[in-house]
Amino acid sequence: MDWSRIDRYAKSLIKEAGHRIRISFYQHIDIETKADANDLVTNIDREIEQFFISHIKRDFPGHSILGEEGFGDEVNSLKGVVWMLDPIDGTMNFIHQKRNFAISLGIYSDGIGMLGYIYDVMRDEFYNAFRGEGAYLNDERIPALRKANLEEAVIGVNASWVAPNRYVDHEKMAELIHTCRGTRSFGSAAIEIAYVATGRVDAYISMRLAPWDIAGGMIIASEVGAVASNLEGKPANLLGQDTFIIANPALHGRILHDFIRLKDRT
Amino acid sequence: MDWSRIDRYAKSLIKEAGHRIRISFYQHIDIETKADANDLVTNIDREIEQFFISHIKRDFPGHSILGEEGFGDEVNSLKGVVWMLDPIDGTMNFIHQKRNFAISLGIYSDGIGMLGYIYDVMRDEFYNAFRGEGAYLNDERIPALRKANLEEAVIGVNASWVAPNRYVDHEKMAELIHTCRGTRSFGSAAIEIAYVATGRVDAYISMRLAPWDIAGGMIIASEVGAVASNLEGKPANLLGQDTFIIANPALHGRILHDFIRLKDRT
Repeated sequence: MDWSRIDRYAKSLIKEAGHRIRISFYQHIDIETKADANDLVTNIDREIEQFFISHIKRDFPGHSILGEEGFGDEVNSLKGVVWMLDPIDGTMNFIHQKRNFAISLGIYSDGIGMLGYIYDVMRDEFYNAFRGEGAYLNDERIPALRKANLEEAVIGVNASWVAPNRYVDHEKMAELIHTCRGTRSFGSAAIEIAYVATGRVDAYISMRLAPWDIAGGMIIASEVGAVASNLEGKPANLLGQDTFIIANPALHGRILHDFIRLKDRT
Repeated sequence: MDWSRIDRYAKSLIKEAGHRIRISFYQHIDIETKADANDLVTNIDREIEQFFISHIKRDFPGHSILGEEGFGDEVNSLKGVVWMLDPIDGTMNFIHQKRNFAISLGIYSDGIGMLGYIYDVMRDEFYNAFRGEGAYLNDERIPALRKANLEEAVIGVNASWVAPNRYVDHEKMAELIHTCRGTRSFGSAAIEIAYVATGRVDAYISMRLAPWDIAGGMIIASEVGAVASNLEGKPANLLGQDTFIIANPALHGRILHDFIRLKDRT
């Protein structure tokens, strides 16, 4: 497999998709809801996903594609090469803010993350990684993470997970909030993972993410030493929706052990 | 009073201060804590405030200056012309992220907001307003806010205020979180107020802000119809630390009435 060629190809597709998204602000954007009233999708999410899929299917016919908007393949196993794509991660921000959303793409080979990309379109910040070769932001090497300290850490966590919820004991989450230095919530998992990779926040926690939200970011963040898992401490789920944490290596175990109490949801 | 001259002067100072902050990343940054371990200040916050104050004192000797870092005047009344300055709003972001902080300045005449500025330094986004003349982002007019609907609103609120706290009933805050479409937290009051003014978020709530955090933003946001107050519904406090809400005009009353239950702190 010529991964360098795939890397150049993917970069070029993502850059063109970013351009298409930027010019979409001059068109009409249709907003629809999906599973629930706050799960939004637009014609632009769909068009961008179709743009990716039509190219990848033509040029890499043996590869599978798992896309948020469902135009890709039904992916039930990680065998072979799988592209995991979120054409617009942070659709609510795309609609409300016209910023703070990203294109997220991870390319896996038999379940191993080979190439990861996050493109913060409106900031024109392109994060990428090639397995074992380090992570980059706009072609500048991202340094390995230095050990963080929880008391001085900034954590990406949405207020929803500190309110009563069906996933975790929210009182333990409140303890975490009171222990760390501060919390932030940007509304795009891909951007929050990019922030962990660059040390701008020290951990990011969510109760409900899909493979396409995390696939690209995990490859990037692991190159600088960040540790990812679901909230049971098992490998992050690339085949279905699950809880998720990605953190500075000095914080991952402590947060899981001291502050996460999963509710029994069976 | 030649307010147009003061406007040109203030803009120019802020732009130069932004430049000084950007180049400060190539220098050593000393970090200290203030009132509590998470209330941070750096030598750059101090240098930037002194830069402002030395110029304003020289060129407008009759004006008072209230600055976050304490190099200005002791301001106990809003008589005369008062400049309210936060040289770096979002110091924690300045330190941890090198982005998502702002210079915030409001100029008041006998308590009336005349000129407001928020400069998101790293995005190079300059928001400003001249009383009665509308609000601008990089010299483009910001349109008046359209009525928002709470069920489709995005609210800026930090997870701390949804965790148990000494200011408000956190269970009612959790209800608010569950009623609106989503929440965000960027970690700079000035930037969050700028987001309200541009309709990117529909409300911003905090339990503990100082006059310099809100002075510039209130002038900008009021030009597009946003409504500000403390959480009792009284005018926002320009002389001391207080609770704060700024919101789309269709949401301000409903949030206060239905979701804010202040604790008795006497």
